[in-house]
Amino acid sequence: MAKSPQEEHPQKAFGWAARDSAGILSPFNFSRRNTGPKDVSIKIMYCGVCHSDIHFVRNEWGFSEYPMVPGHEIVGIVTEVGSEVKKMKVGDKVAIGCMVGGCDKCDDCTKGLESYCRDTILTYNYIYHDGTRTYGGYSDWIVAEEHYVVKFPDTLPMDSGAPLLCAGITVYSPLKYYGLDEPGKHLGVVGLGGLGHLAVKFAKAFGVKVTVISTSPSKEKEAIESLGADAFLVSRDLEQMKAATGTFDGIIDTVSAQHPLQPLLDLLKNHGKLVMVGAPHYTKTEKPLELPIFPLLVGRKLVAGSATGGMQETQEMIDFAAEHNITADVEVIPMNYINTAMERLLKGDVKYRFVIDVANTMARLN
Amino acid sequence: MAKSPQEEHPQKAFGWAARDSAGILSPFNFSRRNTGPKDVSIKIMYCGVCHSDIHFVRNEWGFSEYPMVPGHEIVGIVTEVGSEVKKMKVGDKVAIGCMVGGCDKCDDCTKGLESYCRDTILTYNYIYHDGTRTYGGYSDWIVAEEHYVVKFPDTLPMDSGAPLLCAGITVYSPLKYYGLDEPGKHLGVVGLGGLGHLAVKFAKAFGVKVTVISTSPSKEKEAIESLGADAFLVSRDLEQMKAATGTFDGIIDTVSAQHPLQPLLDLLKNHGKLVMVGAPHYTKTEKPLELPIFPLLVGRKLVAGSATGGMQETQEMIDFAAEHNITADVEVIPMNYINTAMERLLKGDVKYRFVIDVANTMARLN
Repeated sequence: MAKSPQEEHPQKAFGWAARDSAGILSPFNFSRRNTGPKDVSIKIMYCGVCHSDIHFVRNEWGFSEYPMVPGHEIVGIVTEVGSEVKKMKVGDKVAIGCMVGGCDKCDDCTKGLESYCRDTILTYNYIYHDGTRTYGGYSDWIVAEEHYVVKFPDTLPMDSGAPLLCAGITVYSPLKYYGLDEPGKHLGVVGLGGLGHLAVKFAKAFGVKVTVISTSPSKEKEAIESLGADAFLVSRDLEQMKAATGTFDGIIDTVSAQHPLQPLLDLLKNHGKLVMVGAPHYTKTEKPLELPIFPLLVGRKLVAGSATGGMQETQEMIDFAAEHNITADVEVIPMNYINTAMERLLKGDVKYRFVIDVANTMARLN
Repeated sequence: MAKSPQEEHPQKAFGWAARDSAGILSPFNFSRRNTGPKDVSIKIMYCGVCHSDIHFVRNEWGFSEYPMVPGHEIVGIVTEVGSEVKKMKVGDKVAIGCMVGGCDKCDDCTKGLESYCRDTILTYNYIYHDGTRTYGGYSDWIVAEEHYVVKFPDTLPMDSGAPLLCAGITVYSPLKYYGLDEPGKHLGVVGLGGLGHLAVKFAKAFGVKVTVISTSPSKEKEAIESLGADAFLVSRDLEQMKAATGTFDGIIDTVSAQHPLQPLLDLLKNHGKLVMVGAPHYTKTEKPLELPIFPLLVGRKLVAGSATGGMQETQEMIDFAAEHNITADVEVIPMNYINTAMERLLKGDVKYRFVIDVANTMARLN
């Protein structure tokens, strides 16, 4: 008989877990492995709340298992290192993002594209090499292989820096890969949430002209004055949209809900790129996106996707963020606020990311 | 009152034209302009029959005007050159593809991407700089600006070389642009028609491994033995498709009818590219393609389009074709067979391109 989560490893751990697809989180005792030769153990200070945490706890992608401890925007302090660990030492600030393992030998892993490894091991709700389940950052500590831990710059705040580990790299990576980081290019950002507001900040730091595209005219002031966007486009205003036809080199679309792509493709210049980064719900009831082929043909445009980034790029991203003072706009919450926070996140009622103050607000039960 | 097509220019011309959206072609007297300083006049020898000719004559894209002389895969011999013409002289073999003009000053035109110019002037059914309509290659001669005429290699047969001007460049250009021309890569070609069979030939000449993907198992022998494809995949055979999951660097999809993209995206490796080159009917009754977002995200895949190529690339393509003995497989037909040919083309009943023997079979009416 399989051991209970509390007994399968020698080290006690504590977190908040969802017990079923209702997705309500509550305190949870479990255990973690000893620090192996290549491992780093980390006291978790902060953990961001990603929209995908909600998809996962509610089993909206169909492969959730319970109990589940979410959380993959983790910043903490090294408490122990294995004998073969080279880059990190006790007391270092470090961070963990969406994954904690991979095959380490496929084309993607060897090229530093670990997030595309077919055997990638996500930070939670996955099976680790030893056959046990992974538990995420809504917990007091974590142990992970050094390769999947990045150094967290000393000058970056740990709370507002946490969302960089998923939201940050998820927008940074496609901006780089699709050549939308070149100064003077014109980028559209659809959706001003956790991903979108960081896309604006990174793109501005690259020297790119940024226009926020949103259904809500009320976000204009915020987009321009607070986030530094150059312009704002109300996607429901057909006059505005028409006037902007063919003026964008690329668009980062962070919206996961079903929405028409044609108006966005029309905004692109020839050879422009529409990059989707928002994961859809993928439930049976949701309509699929419709792809108009003509604009792709006549303008040699493309619709692409991207999923986070590899470890080397994540380190590069976070160093770049520190250098350019890029952090997420966050609302720091105590652990026991998480269920309310998730409800608010679903309504878009946060500017722009919840971050759990793990170290100060998560007392063990016993 | 506007002059009739027969009277608006000083030079008599003769061709076959569609008179309305029934799309039936019949003999037609019209006129063409004198050879201007930058122009080349060409006696048309052969003209290929492109699927888009059918879309145009039947007004399936909604902007057809009649009478319409189709044809944009034109090979002929220079009969007169203007005073400023430099590259060509009387007696040269030359060719014209999809366009005969553009703005010559936009980003695309100046970069040799004339096919993406917003003011591109297509070879037929468009308005030329002088305000008159353009008439295509189902006619005895044509006059065009030298810049939009390519030199046709002496070693290339004029009949089977004609389809290179549209079908050829339409597959050559995206193979180049999307990096699918590198030796050792694995390319899928969906649909074995005019475009598809040339995609196989060009890709093989590049040193790429080619798998033809088709609904018809009956095409396997032909694909491998005649066209030189390395492998064949029956898209309706789920076992075969599953076994090929994640093995393609790119896919050129020449199918214009509504079809599911998910199985093709599944065939791609991570970072793979699905390139659409078949123009859909675009009628109101046709369902749009559905775009699954998940495979784009998790594999950083993209769906893209491409439309023919610029003039420099067209010259490069046709020189490459001559060097590697690439021609279309054609059925040469007399002009008065065109209406039957179009019916057969709609049924896929041609291997793989009809080419009209214009010079020998199109007698003027008077």
